[in-house]
Amino acid sequence: VPSLEFEQTRRLVDRGVQESWWFLADQLQQLRKKVESYPDLTSHIDQILEEGSDHTRVLQFDMSRLSQLDGLGTWREQEALDLSSVVQKRLHTLQNPQDCEKARKLVCNLNKGCGYGCQIHHVVYCLIVAYGSKRTLVLKSRGWRYNKAGWEDVFQPLSDTCTDPSGYSHSHWPGSNETQVLDLPIIDTLSQRPPYLPLAIPRDISERLMRLHGDPAAWWVGQFLKYLLKLQPKTQEMLDNMSESLGFQRPIVGIHVRRTDKVGTEAAYHSINEYMAHVENYYTKLQLNNPTLTKRVYLASDDPTVITEAQKKFPEYTFIGDSNIAKTASVATRYTDASLKGIIADVHFLSLTDYLVCTFSSQVCRIAYEIMQGYHPDASSYFRSLDDIYYYGGQNAHNQKARFPHVPRRPDELALNPRDVVGIAGNHWDGYSKGVNRRTNQNGLYPSYKMEEVVDIADFPSYTHTDKRKSGT
Amino acid sequence: VPSLEFEQTRRLVDRGVQESWWFLADQLQQLRKKVESYPDLTSHIDQILEEGSDHTRVLQFDMSRLSQLDGLGTWREQEALDLSSVVQKRLHTLQNPQDCEKARKLVCNLNKGCGYGCQIHHVVYCLIVAYGSKRTLVLKSRGWRYNKAGWEDVFQPLSDTCTDPSGYSHSHWPGSNETQVLDLPIIDTLSQRPPYLPLAIPRDISERLMRLHGDPAAWWVGQFLKYLLKLQPKTQEMLDNMSESLGFQRPIVGIHVRRTDKVGTEAAYHSINEYMAHVENYYTKLQLNNPTLTKRVYLASDDPTVITEAQKKFPEYTFIGDSNIAKTASVATRYTDASLKGIIADVHFLSLTDYLVCTFSSQVCRIAYEIMQGYHPDASSYFRSLDDIYYYGGQNAHNQKARFPHVPRRPDELALNPRDVVGIAGNHWDGYSKGVNRRTNQNGLYPSYKMEEVVDIADFPSYTHTDKRKSGT
Ligand SMILES: Nc1nc2c(ncn2[C@@H]2O[C@H](COP(=O)(O)OP(=O)(O)O)[C@@H](O)[C@H]2O)c(=O)[nH]1
Ligand SMILES: Nc1nc2c(ncn2[C@@H]2O[C@H](COP(=O)(O)OP(=O)(O)O)[C@@H](O)[C@H]2O)c(=O)[nH]1
Repeated sequence: VPSLEFEQTRRLVDRGVQESWWFLADQLQQLRKKVESYPDLTSHIDQILEEGSDHTRVLQFDMSRLSQLDGLGTWREQEALDLSSVVQKRLHTLQNPQDCEKARKLVCNLNKGCGYGCQIHHVVYCLIVAYGSKRTLVLKSRGWRYNKAGWEDVFQPLSDTCTDPSGYSHSHWPGSNETQVLDLPIIDTLSQRPPYLPLAIPRDISERLMRLHGDPAAWWVGQFLKYLLKLQPKTQEMLDNMSESLGFQRPIVGIHVRRTDKVGTEAAYHSINEYMAHVENYYTKLQLNNPTLTKRVYLASDDPTVITEAQKKFPEYTFIGDSNIAKTASVATRYTDASLKGIIADVHFLSLTDYLVCTFSSQVCRIAYEIMQGYHPDASSYFRSLDDIYYYGGQNAHNQKARFPHVPRRPDELALNPRDVVGIAGNHWDGYSKGVNRRTNQNGLYPSYKMEEVVDIADFPSYTHTDKRKSGT
Repeated sequence: VPSLEFEQTRRLVDRGVQESWWFLADQLQQLRKKVESYPDLTSHIDQILEEGSDHTRVLQFDMSRLSQLDGLGTWREQEALDLSSVVQKRLHTLQNPQDCEKARKLVCNLNKGCGYGCQIHHVVYCLIVAYGSKRTLVLKSRGWRYNKAGWEDVFQPLSDTCTDPSGYSHSHWPGSNETQVLDLPIIDTLSQRPPYLPLAIPRDISERLMRLHGDPAAWWVGQFLKYLLKLQPKTQEMLDNMSESLGFQRPIVGIHVRRTDKVGTEAAYHSINEYMAHVENYYTKLQLNNPTLTKRVYLASDDPTVITEAQKKFPEYTFIGDSNIAKTASVATRYTDASLKGIIADVHFLSLTDYLVCTFSSQVCRIAYEIMQGYHPDASSYFRSLDDIYYYGGQNAHNQKARFPHVPRRPDELALNPRDVVGIAGNHWDGYSKGVNRRTNQNGLYPSYKMEEVVDIADFPSYTHTDKRKSGT
């Protein structure tokens, strides 16, 4: 069993290797632009880029071997199972109180005016608050914009025994401890925010979770999705049929291309080539081991033209995806049963891939990433976002801590002392991140490799009583 | 206890990080030369070099922390002690036979026409052959060119009980198993070379040694030096006094600058600045942890002007060294008692440093490196040679094996298939090594990061009987 420090140090090296190459590749690209008109210089730079990325791939290949050796891989598998079952059991107990009539409840309405990903995240947030306040979550989903019949038409109910929102006393959040039934507003308008909102993880599993996983908050959210998104048999059947007809098979990379209403409003346009550059890099790494593999891509989008474009431009890839699904995702037909099936399928298959290339500005891809964490011991690095880092809408501060001092080299860079806390706004994937130094209040860029993550550890109520009960009782 | 594969993989990453930066730094320097007359381009490149080397330092810092965690550091300390005592006990038993009159002996003459390092390596070679043929080594050293009184005037005898070369039958190498006394020629003229010459290590400790150490052959040679170079009390006293008067203190880097007769004949000239660039890099890495340390350098040379030059050019360093010693090392006075004391002291202090910067073309520095291996669990990376990689004069082939294919990018590059064996001639410290592909007989450059070392494992006689005896009996 490795120590927390061992696993954290190992992951620091993983990230360091990645950040170092992002830095160098970006600088070389900048240099290349400056000498664009000198072919002998640009071709020299191209060669450095090619060889340098191969160096990086071999380092990553060896670091990944190292992470599996001496029983570390088996330990990680088992630990992930154990930790997940602790959390699932707690949720099961919370959602199935001994006496539903007397149970303290939290009521959540599936009527947030936004897309599927956003709505699922709304339910996750509700269940986190339920867990944090030790209340049974009751979901009101009749008249859901994606399916008038409600949640239970596609997913299993949140409780076997207790789905009735009634009680002897009612109040809006925060109410008091004694109020039996509390109505929870959406996270955006929540006042009296509890400390246990994302990206917080519970103190009682924090050490195990930080040792196991490179992105504890995403794992934690993933556990709520695992509890929530249990499929009804007919939904399961639909996915099984699709899997077979599409020929879904691993290894496979997932691409999510978010277009239509998002582009130009909440996110920038990214061409298919941008996504594919990262897919190519992923497969080149796999080919170190297996030179003859089939390069498969599961491609999801709300723009049906993307699939045909990709197939035309990258004929050496096998693209899997359904442009009929993409068609239903158009803004005009988005809030329909057919569209719901499509987005459920896309999220499902994206989460089953080995690596995600997408824009984390979209909740579709973030959900897939979160669910993915339940399928691997640590899938925290199995993605490449073209824009944001991982976040949870409405989250508390996401901080990093400086390990080393930094003296700014350019006017837009932060000065850092060791142990300075920086609120991170984004990673530019070029060796630098952007944020605010909480000591100096200065905003600016800083070198990502000099930082470590600050995990937000919050006090949640105790579930030790639940943990001790035999499962099923 | 880590597995062989875990430790080898960990060291592959260490080397990969280093080779990757050597490659990139050299390419950037080449690029810089091409754009020399454009100050905005050169200053951009200088900045990439500065930041890139800092990325590498942080990676190395974290990899070195990783190598110590979870009891790996303590395990390595203990394993190094255990392995060393196995070998020392075997040598002690070999050198102190029950009955010297009947013992099978190997006679070695300390009259090789070369310098101290070369002569000590001659004795090491003799003792290796003695070990490999299970004969007691008898050293004839009367009239030694460095000290007419012979070996025992400075070092302890090789045996407490058996230093008499006489016997009932004599022959030159290889003789037969039954010949009691064999005379061994120098390695350069040895015919019927046994398979156990350096860089071979004995099969019976090979797995433990390869797991423990990044350069098993250097460790193995170091064990023979540990047995051989036991000081007479007056030599010890001299070194203790010098240590005090020089103020020898760690952390300290050792530099050996070989000049006079070597330069232009067997090695190229290297300026003090070249050595100091590597010292500077070493200390910058240490400063990640300890920003205020004193930067000490032990400086040995056969040219007395080097110390004054270094002190003048690098005033922020504390140089430790004795230019009187360097004076006695001049070719005119080299083979004298005074000079012998000087070179013993220089090798001694160099071996006690934390990092060696030197030319491995010189046996002086190679000996220091070999002895150093006895002071740390794995000091195989505690050096930077400005020319050769580590070798042993007269050694058998030194091979590497390709882990990945290589398609030549330039006409002087080797084509490699996975598992191709390459005889390595040298590392150019720029990401490339030079050698011969033993499958194709092609000579050329190849990327060092795609290779792994082939350790030469030879059958030596069994010492299991010795291992089982209680020590001291
Ligand atoms: N089937 C399908 N629907 C998509 C896709 N991308 C976007 N959509 C639709 O657009 C909605 C976007 O809203 P939301 O899930 O909140 O994600 P966001 O707006 O991208 O952050 C989704 O819920 C889907 O209904 C896709 O790749 N496949
Ligand atoms: N004291 C001292 N003597 C040196 C130094 N460098 C070379 N010498 C002398 O020069 C000899 C060089 O011969 P050798 O040891 O075979 O090494 P090589 O010729 O450099 O491979 C040494 O043995 C010393 O006598 C040095 O740094 N200090």
